[in-house]
Amino acid sequence: MSNCIVAQSGGPTSVINATVAGVVKGNQMNPLYDHVYGGLNGIEGILAERFVDLTNMSEEENRILQQTPSSALGSCRYKMKRDNVEDFEKLLHIMEKYDIETMFYTGGNDSMDTVAALSEYAAEHGIANRRFIGCPKTVDNDLVVIDHCPGFASAAKFIAMTALQTWLDVTVYPPSRQEVFILETMGRDAGWLAASACLSGKIDILILPEDVFDKELFLKRVRECIAEKSKCYVVVSEGARYADGSYIAAAESKNDLFGHAVLGGAGEALEQMILESGAAPRCKVQDLASAQRSHATEQSLVDRTEAYRLGLSAHMHSADKSFTGQMVGMKRREGERYDVEYFTIPAKEVANYVKHFPADWILPEYRGITQEAHDYLQPLIEGTPYITYKNGLPAYVEPYYLRD
Amino acid sequence: MSNCIVAQSGGPTSVINATVAGVVKGNQMNPLYDHVYGGLNGIEGILAERFVDLTNMSEEENRILQQTPSSALGSCRYKMKRDNVEDFEKLLHIMEKYDIETMFYTGGNDSMDTVAALSEYAAEHGIANRRFIGCPKTVDNDLVVIDHCPGFASAAKFIAMTALQTWLDVTVYPPSRQEVFILETMGRDAGWLAASACLSGKIDILILPEDVFDKELFLKRVRECIAEKSKCYVVVSEGARYADGSYIAAAESKNDLFGHAVLGGAGEALEQMILESGAAPRCKVQDLASAQRSHATEQSLVDRTEAYRLGLSAHMHSADKSFTGQMVGMKRREGERYDVEYFTIPAKEVANYVKHFPADWILPEYRGITQEAHDYLQPLIEGTPYITYKNGLPAYVEPYYLRD
Repeated sequence: MSNCIVAQSGGPTSVINATVAGVVKGNQMNPLYDHVYGGLNGIEGILAERFVDLTNMSEEENRILQQTPSSALGSCRYKMKRDNVEDFEKLLHIMEKYDIETMFYTGGNDSMDTVAALSEYAAEHGIANRRFIGCPKTVDNDLVVIDHCPGFASAAKFIAMTALQTWLDVTVYPPSRQEVFILETMGRDAGWLAASACLSGKIDILILPEDVFDKELFLKRVRECIAEKSKCYVVVSEGARYADGSYIAAAESKNDLFGHAVLGGAGEALEQMILESGAAPRCKVQDLASAQRSHATEQSLVDRTEAYRLGLSAHMHSADKSFTGQMVGMKRREGERYDVEYFTIPAKEVANYVKHFPADWILPEYRGITQEAHDYLQPLIEGTPYITYKNGLPAYVEPYYLRD
Repeated sequence: MSNCIVAQSGGPTSVINATVAGVVKGNQMNPLYDHVYGGLNGIEGILAERFVDLTNMSEEENRILQQTPSSALGSCRYKMKRDNVEDFEKLLHIMEKYDIETMFYTGGNDSMDTVAALSEYAAEHGIANRRFIGCPKTVDNDLVVIDHCPGFASAAKFIAMTALQTWLDVTVYPPSRQEVFILETMGRDAGWLAASACLSGKIDILILPEDVFDKELFLKRVRECIAEKSKCYVVVSEGARYADGSYIAAAESKNDLFGHAVLGGAGEALEQMILESGAAPRCKVQDLASAQRSHATEQSLVDRTEAYRLGLSAHMHSADKSFTGQMVGMKRREGERYDVEYFTIPAKEVANYVKHFPADWILPEYRGITQEAHDYLQPLIEGTPYITYKNGLPAYVEPYYLRD
């Protein structure tokens, strides 16, 4: 038999390690490969021959790995360019050297492009025994074709939960205290994460990159909320933008009356608009920053289970010696109750596209999302897996990239 | 029999509602009072006769109340001044009108001062049948005499957990990427919350209000960390300050080379120092803001249990008709294993003092906390209570202040 390697790329999520755990467990249940290597820091580490051997991972470590956020194998931002023949040759040489037949690559858009490029290169050069398989992940949920991305749902759950909790916090003072609370989420080009805050049922104003930001309309809505109930809860995606496509954070820095640079993101830009216009006398901003993709003590059970199964599914599919250049994914089944089926698709059909939050799921005047959007999101955040704690904190695997 | 009232004041915590639940359950187990009223928005609402009747709260609601963060009865920032005789007379009149013998007040420094002032006023005017009892809470852990404050440990746990998770996030890229991560916590005058991040075992640099901030020393430490391992994890308390007592955030705005105002807090001030000095090329700031005191899905079991028992204990003590002007609290027992005993103390001995993080628990050069500090903090974050979920999110009681 030959060997396989699994590696991770792009920004961390709270369940990307579950996919690795799935590949490893798949090979323990059905040993298609002698060794399951973990490539450290994605393609960058593989090109430097930095591997760990995950073949005999214990059941306990596998379970703890599934609850560990971020990328336990490390990540990279290195993109293999299609015209960089040297990298392609080097990688195939390393695979040959270590008798690695299959590479499983977990990541987003760029990683699927890498999978497509490598498999095309191998095909063009008549190399049949080196195969490349993609496993999707992004917190942004912006991959096309699949119903949703592993990693998104757990981040969405944390965001909705934080919205609910901070709404309880900001509403606690009497009506005499007028206050706006602004929650800023990730999502440079797609509003999925910001929209998921609406699952809390507490959002007054929602601003997505897919909507057009109109300052006067926004301030009108803030004034209405303050007049009605003295508090106003706003959720904004970091990618919120004006009609001309400029980000509201950047645009504000140009428009600042005092000629000062505005530091920080969309939330602070909105805060400044509110305070300068007098729409409300007080404003707090909560930027969820890295915490939203790293928080893993309330992973969505649906998300974690699916991420794990995608690892299993990728390993299973690889028994077919012609299976390469493909990504595994989930489709939602028709029916009353939420369920998915797993399928495969050429990675090139996913790479370099962006799935936006649908325009017809956005309510007018920043009033949130439609029932259809709610029905799409709700089942994804269901369930909380059992989490093992140690000394009062969740038990996590020591990152493999810090072990060597 | 007469009635009692319970109310909440000051900033929310994730277990302040457990204390209310304890008072209510105490009266169900031993009905010292006909009615247990909840005063809405603290003293401010009581003076406006805004009450709810909590006497017959169901077991299910009591349980959900204990897992609900923030103040379900609402809060206020209204302080009863000792020379404001009108307020004192009005409050005693309202207590007489509703036959309220005992008022339980949950809060921090100011609330304990209110308890002391009201009981003194009643004593001076020969009013023996109106009594005032304090229950402590603050996320800041800055109340004197008691071992620790209810509310602190759950916030500390969330901070330590977030430090661990975001450390996994920031270390994920190869050594070629040099980066500083800054976690900013609450704590204007006391460094307890920032210090608790050290329970994660991952903190390189810790800056507390009790320490003196020295910019050159800080940048030296950043450079050392970056040189050693290419990443540097910094935790800073919002109250971090220079030797002259000025806050580092405020001071930076004066020193800015371009004459610009620095928006935001201590974390952004540090970021600016790092980038301007070139100590590291990249920096991320995570300000935990309201989320740290509102996050309740991983309450510390120790914290929640103690907060609930303080409510029970306050109710029990009130069976003694001479018990007034007192606060209930916990002392840590001597011994190998963590345990507390409950005790009472005049509220005036707690009001208007601040318990600082001990200077001899701080390691030199911002290297974190001593083993003694660790041993103090560790047992407080142990255990996670069972949390009831609904539609994928934690189930919370609808705030009482929004029901009337």
